[in-house]
Amino acid sequence: MEEWLRFSVAYWHSFRGTGSDPFGAGTIRRPWDDGTESLENAKRRLRAAFEFFSKLGNKYWTFHDRDLAPEGATIAETNANLDQLVELAAELQKKTGVKLLWATCNLFAHPRYMHGAATSCDAHVTAYAGAQVKKGLEIAHRLGAENFVFWGGREGYLSLLNTDVKADLDHLAAFFRMVVGINRYGMLGSIDANTGSPDLGWDTDQFPMDVRNCTVIMKAVVEQAGLAPGGLNFDAKVRRESTELRDLFIAHAAAMDTFARGLKNAARIISDGVMRKSLMARYASWNSGVGARIAAGEASLEECEKVILERGDPKPSSGHQEHFEAMLNHYI
Amino acid sequence: MEEWLRFSVAYWHSFRGTGSDPFGAGTIRRPWDDGTESLENAKRRLRAAFEFFSKLGNKYWTFHDRDLAPEGATIAETNANLDQLVELAAELQKKTGVKLLWATCNLFAHPRYMHGAATSCDAHVTAYAGAQVKKGLEIAHRLGAENFVFWGGREGYLSLLNTDVKADLDHLAAFFRMVVGINRYGMLGSIDANTGSPDLGWDTDQFPMDVRNCTVIMKAVVEQAGLAPGGLNFDAKVRRESTELRDLFIAHAAAMDTFARGLKNAARIISDGVMRKSLMARYASWNSGVGARIAAGEASLEECEKVILERGDPKPSSGHQEHFEAMLNHYI
Amino acid sequence: MEEWLRFSVAYWHSFRGTGSDPFGAGTIRRPWDDGTESLENAKRRLRAAFEFFSKLGNKYWTFHDRDLAPEGATIAETNANLDQLVELAAELQKKTGVKLLWATCNLFAHPRYMHGAATSCDAHVTAYAGAQVKKGLEIAHRLGAENFVFWGGREGYLSLLNTDVKADLDHLAAFFRMVVGINRYGMLGSIDANTGSPDLGWDTDQFPMDVRNCTVIMKAVVEQAGLAPGGLNFDAKVRRESTELRDLFIAHAAAMDTFARGLKNAARIISDGVMRKSLMARYASWNSGVGARIAAGEASLEECEKVILERGDPKPSSGHQEHFEAMLNHYI
Amino acid sequence: MEEWLRFSVAYWHSFRGTGSDPFGAGTIRRPWDDGTESLENAKRRLRAAFEFFSKLGNKYWTFHDRDLAPEGATIAETNANLDQLVELAAELQKKTGVKLLWATCNLFAHPRYMHGAATSCDAHVTAYAGAQVKKGLEIAHRLGAENFVFWGGREGYLSLLNTDVKADLDHLAAFFRMVVGINRYGMLGSIDANTGSPDLGWDTDQFPMDVRNCTVIMKAVVEQAGLAPGGLNFDAKVRRESTELRDLFIAHAAAMDTFARGLKNAARIISDGVMRKSLMARYASWNSGVGARIAAGEASLEECEKVILERGDPKPSSGHQEHFEAMLNHYI
Repeated sequence: MEEWLRFSVAYWHSFRGTGSDPFGAGTIRRPWDDGTESLENAKRRLRAAFEFFSKLGNKYWTFHDRDLAPEGATIAETNANLDQLVELAAELQKKTGVKLLWATCNLFAHPRYMHGAATSCDAHVTAYAGAQVKKGLEIAHRLGAENFVFWGGREGYLSLLNTDVKADLDHLAAFFRMVVGINRYGMLGSIDANTGSPDLGWDTDQFPMDVRNCTVIMKAVVEQAGLAPGGLNFDAKVRRESTELRDLFIAHAAAMDTFARGLKNAARIISDGVMRKSLMARYASWNSGVGARIAAGEASLEECEKVILERGDPKPSSGHQEHFEAMLNHYI
Repeated sequence: MEEWLRFSVAYWHSFRGTGSDPFGAGTIRRPWDDGTESLENAKRRLRAAFEFFSKLGNKYWTFHDRDLAPEGATIAETNANLDQLVELAAELQKKTGVKLLWATCNLFAHPRYMHGAATSCDAHVTAYAGAQVKKGLEIAHRLGAENFVFWGGREGYLSLLNTDVKADLDHLAAFFRMVVGINRYGMLGSIDANTGSPDLGWDTDQFPMDVRNCTVIMKAVVEQAGLAPGGLNFDAKVRRESTELRDLFIAHAAAMDTFARGLKNAARIISDGVMRKSLMARYASWNSGVGARIAAGEASLEECEKVILERGDPKPSSGHQEHFEAMLNHYI
Repeated sequence: MEEWLRFSVAYWHSFRGTGSDPFGAGTIRRPWDDGTESLENAKRRLRAAFEFFSKLGNKYWTFHDRDLAPEGATIAETNANLDQLVELAAELQKKTGVKLLWATCNLFAHPRYMHGAATSCDAHVTAYAGAQVKKGLEIAHRLGAENFVFWGGREGYLSLLNTDVKADLDHLAAFFRMVVGINRYGMLGSIDANTGSPDLGWDTDQFPMDVRNCTVIMKAVVEQAGLAPGGLNFDAKVRRESTELRDLFIAHAAAMDTFARGLKNAARIISDGVMRKSLMARYASWNSGVGARIAAGEASLEECEKVILERGDPKPSSGHQEHFEAMLNHYI
Repeated sequence: MEEWLRFSVAYWHSFRGTGSDPFGAGTIRRPWDDGTESLENAKRRLRAAFEFFSKLGNKYWTFHDRDLAPEGATIAETNANLDQLVELAAELQKKTGVKLLWATCNLFAHPRYMHGAATSCDAHVTAYAGAQVKKGLEIAHRLGAENFVFWGGREGYLSLLNTDVKADLDHLAAFFRMVVGINRYGMLGSIDANTGSPDLGWDTDQFPMDVRNCTVIMKAVVEQAGLAPGGLNFDAKVRRESTELRDLFIAHAAAMDTFARGLKNAARIISDGVMRKSLMARYASWNSGVGARIAAGEASLEECEKVILERGDPKPSSGHQEHFEAMLNHYI
């Protein structure tokens, strides 16, 4: 099952998260973390993370640059801090065999990015983001990252009144063109393996625990021959009330188990072929006649009119949605 | 003001709507409408509509093909019905001077389209849609429509379990390629002039009555030099409790008035130039130095790094959102 | 399992629904239904429904008064129509053994109720609603209904500008006081056994097919010793694309099966007792000391202060949410 | 206008907020605030706040207990810290004439409250909350607060699996009964004067800037003869990008101005009486006959039936919603 379930642990949620939320301070304090921004603390935290990976048995991890090491007074100092942690990460990766699924740059948390990074109204901020991405791509390469990710958490706008949207879009395009100049990674198909609450309008980043949901996800993954070089990244955090270290193990293990059950169900659905056959039957009319000609780009509106004049109105047939749902339930 | 406020009345809501909703039957019955699907009724209704347009004073109307004339037993009969009403519409347009902003095909209401039109699982349905669009483009041309619109109300899916999304997307593309073969219209910038309720998750198609909202809309319209050949189409319906004919007049007149006030406010905002100047000040750093070079595509990530190493971290400056909001209020 | 799973079929969705929606006409036409509002058609439809119940094997049905029989020109005629159908229903109930879980009055679909029923701005409408409820309670009694339901689908308001909320609330209260005068039913705990789409903001009334969801529902049902005299009413409709009669069977059967699996899972969860024990452990502090005294209403804020001064700040303990979720998955 | 516009400044947002959000660190640093939890810093901050109140000209402020003073190692130390700040607040209130609209206890931010306060699974936490509320009521009294507020930000549940809802509700009731034992305040009608974004599913606590919205709010306030002893509390924060001190002034001043315009509009609407007259006309049928009898509790369902049998079906009349909206626009 391993090649289908390329799990990674997200360093930010699981090793930098504190359980703080808009209405309350942090609740989670790990024994190895003294709460300071010192390099010693950063190293201790990284060693603890690799111990966790080894015990949990995941093959991949992911991080933002700023998760690893504290910012210094200048970008030079920041990069020097980062280099120290990257060297330690390289060592720990080698020792444990855990690999870097992808790295990314945090271009949203620092106050400098409050107006955006590539879409900031301040070009100096965009230049800073450029410098940061250059370094980010370098460390990703150093650590053998299989992919590199951009997440534009602050790109966008809060009020149209103080925003020049056209300028922002142009600057975003210019920024990506600079990146393309030195980038060595391709397009990535990967999954943020988390879930929300259907009752809420925002993202709660919970661990995915729904077997039915993971079944349909894994069905799609298998049908497209897997995610590699992407993976199933647990972009999820334990609830802020789940304050014990064992909650972190249980959450990851239970979510892995949920995906594994989903994969098994999906494999049976696919090998049985019954659902696929029912689906194909619905689309049969596209395989010949005017359907095949439209699909192939060989028909015209005139031909369509001629067909309808000759053959009359189509007869509606049932979509059988409830039957499809019942078939799915059979496998769960 | 007329050239900025290209209002059109939507025939479907205002002359075919009955006030029915998911929990109740129609509430609105017009004196000219006997509720039948006869051609006589269709003609009486169209004459009433043009009388309404004349009294209201709007310059444009819009319709779906199926709004005008009833379907017959065959597409040939349907098209013949349509032709009769189109001839009457041509006459009424000539007599009143009211023009057709755009026409569109209704590819969603009839049961044949329940699985989609261009994305139906039944190719025969897509062929039917093709025949219908061919006729739709012909009548649009006959009536001097300034534009033609596609609204894919049934394209999409309800359940992934019984849907082949890739096939649907390919069929949609093939459908539009057939249309391009005979289409004489360009891309359209137009506004569905309606509003919803901020408390609801779905579209209620109410008449727009918010001066502040219409001010920022008209500010954008004027800044882009108007909407022509598009317009402000009142894709809006009176509430199902607004059962009197005068409600239909009041709703259109009050919404027109709201946009007119918005236009006047927008004109003062733009001619004063204070808000624009404040906006430009925020983006000043893009006019020279590294900002100008990034925007022009002349900078690289290496140059960004060099700039930051030399000049240090940018200093955040306030976005002044509340000040911008207060400036806007000054004009309303 | 029968006593826990008191399923009923909703006559409105399954025998009066046509599949129409805000963007399209009806798609579903049953062989026994000629689409007219005649009494003959109403009787044929009711006989078909009881044949369906017998084949499906549900023990209960539910209806609105207006589902059964067409309105006449006067309320006297409407009630006479209703009486004919009620007599037929009594006969069919006797013959099949299917019972009436509850009846209700439709106080929302007719245009007279467009401003509300008990909260209409027109007192004459409220009087009409009163007359209708009187008759509704009489026929419920005649058919041995186990319960009676009020659903205030039109009570409320669309715009505060034309609504006197205080008057409406007073009128609603007055209306219910009139009902209490003749009502013989108590409070009802029942479940609308349907589901929506988590991606939509409105109610789609789909058949419930999620085993996990039905497990937690049935766990709650069993923990409160069942729903009787309420039940699991399938207030659900087949999708408008599910146009075949067999879709109606499959939807009900599959939803029943989903609840049955949920019940089995719930029974194992409850008899194992592990989840209950974990839950009790979290609340253990309420069983003695200051917790027991607060719960019993014997403590005061002064006592709370004294306890905290003596014993200090509580120590937070983990909520173990992910562990609870993993435990639940174990049973599914 | 002053007696209708009882504005208060919320100490938490405007003097404790830092602009941090779920994706980023604080952006706002005031010159008087050194970022520490020292008593000196707390006092400097409070003096700055009263200087702000004096310059802004608001008559009221509001706070949570924990906004004022840092927690100590024990509740005794915490209360001693609080006493120092309360004495300073009493002095500053006297000197400036600014009064305390209400005080409240922060029972949600500290990790001890992560499972709730009155509804915590840990009775010791509820006892702590009791002790805190006792002190909160004492300081409210000391500072002449006109009201006292409870905000149950952590009461509720995240997962039903680990929650005993019935126990929680019982404990909440028991908690409030303890409060009632010593409380000297009555029920409060007050307004959280903030706004959100209609495009978002969560509360963004923006300053209210919409004149139309504030018009209908003030219309309701005036119609109920004002809010006293409640007020219009600016439970609002400047955007995290609005980092300058003058943004804080502008935001409050512009929101006050918006409410003042709303009040003037409301006064004209009410003194003109046209909208009221239109509203009354809609409800006229409740003033006599069966309407008056139903409203007075004198009618029965039998009487309703008799009336309808005699007088027939009510005639629906238009709700004129668009006309009401147009009337409102006339005053804005």
